[in-house]
Amino acid sequence: MRHHKLSLCAQHYLEWLPAQVERFIQKQSLFTKEERVLVAVSGGKDSLALWDILDRLGYQTKGLYIDLGIDESIGYSARSREFAQQFAAERGLKLSIVSLPGSHQETLAELAIRTKRGRENPCSLCGLVKRHLFNQAALDGGFDALATAHNLDDEAAILLANTLEWSLEHLSRGQPLLPAAPGFARKVKPFARVYEFESAAYAFLRGIRWMPDECPFSRESKQIYYKSHFNEWEEEMPGAKLRFYNNYLKALDAGAFPERQEQADALDERRCPNCGQPTTTGGLCAFCRIFVSDLPKNW
Amino acid sequence: MRHHKLSLCAQHYLEWLPAQVERFIQKQSLFTKEERVLVAVSGGKDSLALWDILDRLGYQTKGLYIDLGIDESIGYSARSREFAQQFAAERGLKLSIVSLPGSHQETLAELAIRTKRGRENPCSLCGLVKRHLFNQAALDGGFDALATAHNLDDEAAILLANTLEWSLEHLSRGQPLLPAAPGFARKVKPFARVYEFESAAYAFLRGIRWMPDECPFSRESKQIYYKSHFNEWEEEMPGAKLRFYNNYLKALDAGAFPERQEQADALDERRCPNCGQPTTTGGLCAFCRIFVSDLPKNW
Repeated sequence: MRHHKLSLCAQHYLEWLPAQVERFIQKQSLFTKEERVLVAVSGGKDSLALWDILDRLGYQTKGLYIDLGIDESIGYSARSREFAQQFAAERGLKLSIVSLPGSHQETLAELAIRTKRGRENPCSLCGLVKRHLFNQAALDGGFDALATAHNLDDEAAILLANTLEWSLEHLSRGQPLLPAAPGFARKVKPFARVYEFESAAYAFLRGIRWMPDECPFSRESKQIYYKSHFNEWEEEMPGAKLRFYNNYLKALDAGAFPERQEQADALDERRCPNCGQPTTTGGLCAFCRIFVSDLPKNW
Repeated sequence: MRHHKLSLCAQHYLEWLPAQVERFIQKQSLFTKEERVLVAVSGGKDSLALWDILDRLGYQTKGLYIDLGIDESIGYSARSREFAQQFAAERGLKLSIVSLPGSHQETLAELAIRTKRGRENPCSLCGLVKRHLFNQAALDGGFDALATAHNLDDEAAILLANTLEWSLEHLSRGQPLLPAAPGFARKVKPFARVYEFESAAYAFLRGIRWMPDECPFSRESKQIYYKSHFNEWEEEMPGAKLRFYNNYLKALDAGAFPERQEQADALDERRCPNCGQPTTTGGLCAFCRIFVSDLPKNW
């Protein structure tokens, strides 16, 4: 790890990374061992490595896999789910499955066509659907926190994109812990300071089998574009991603990008009449609007 | 200009750019036609184009060239000065010359060696010396504003570098107008929204002869590194630099990066005992410290 000026053998590495994650969880007060954590699991290396580490550290976890019916030529969702299920079964961990085609009779790609977002790039729709379903599951299950496996490469790329747009709303909410609020589960990112290759090395050395393919829709993602730029910087200036992210957290602490109170207040009062989750508009939330013209019977 | 979705012939272009600059000067209240503006002139395309435009628009200007004695193999400073002098003479404009070797008996490179900054990369020293001498000249001459020809490419690159470091102090001072304060001249950047190639095209079409060489020390500059990244983004997303800069100004207006009052207060009270310019330390300012062990007689 050039950014840490540190080289480790496999055995020590498998101790070192969980210790790093533990320190981050405690320093940022993400959650405690008395709390129940719902882990968003995709079947990829990051989420399985995170789940493995949280379990090894003694946290109370349950996994949640969201099946969006992405089946473009490679059976992406079905295969990802199998990796997640196999991982959970081998370790005796509990995994819930939520299926979009099961509950709403539509795959993500079909939804993208119907809502005229284009079949080729349903990424924003995917984010909307997953945020909604994860939040709902965490609330319904009474979990104390919802953990996602966003790694440092993800966070740095998202942060760079939001910075290039100077999106104050997003910049005010980029910290690794978003506290619970009425209608919102606490959201935490225990891997926010873990490089993608650190996560991959861990998964590999632990013998975790993960879904090797990228989502077939991700090729055009802007995030991948910013990641490649950041990889160049990291190559020339080891630690660039980590400094960028750490300094951003310091800037947040120093009061840059205060969260708008009006916005929080507005969300506090308004609820979607269909699902009960908070919404800025006062009407149906963005998720329920997708299905408003033809709400499924079991909805 | 892909970012403006606009194509112009030479004649209209030579009207369009000054009109854009005029609108920016007025919108940002940089200075008025009743005020006296000191223009920092390097002999390069940007500063000569800026001076040309301000003069054509009817502003009261005087140029200031700072000779740092940069003479690495190509007589950089001497040749740059000649371009500035020729430009001024042809138009009957007034140009002051301040010479570092003349007043302090040392070139920038010699200074860099003596202060152990390394002969190869005196860029930070150059910035320090020029900021000091420009400010002193503006104050001594009683000018209302000191104008530099930083263009959009410069500003976007500096902003990106400061953002990657989340340098709140710099981010709070990136606007195109820094008001005058005790000991500080008002500093303005009328070209802050002008792309480098727009400035170059203007200088070329106006028949301005400018110093064609880059500073021999600039090759390793980080700014050039960030510029090249931004050029790639601009290529793929026309207008990327302009959006980045505009959105940053909006974020500033919205209250991101408030300037620290303590810092402003501290500067307000403390003066360098040698030159009288403000200083954060209470002792000699950073410029005078360089010469403290051996102050020249005429200093």
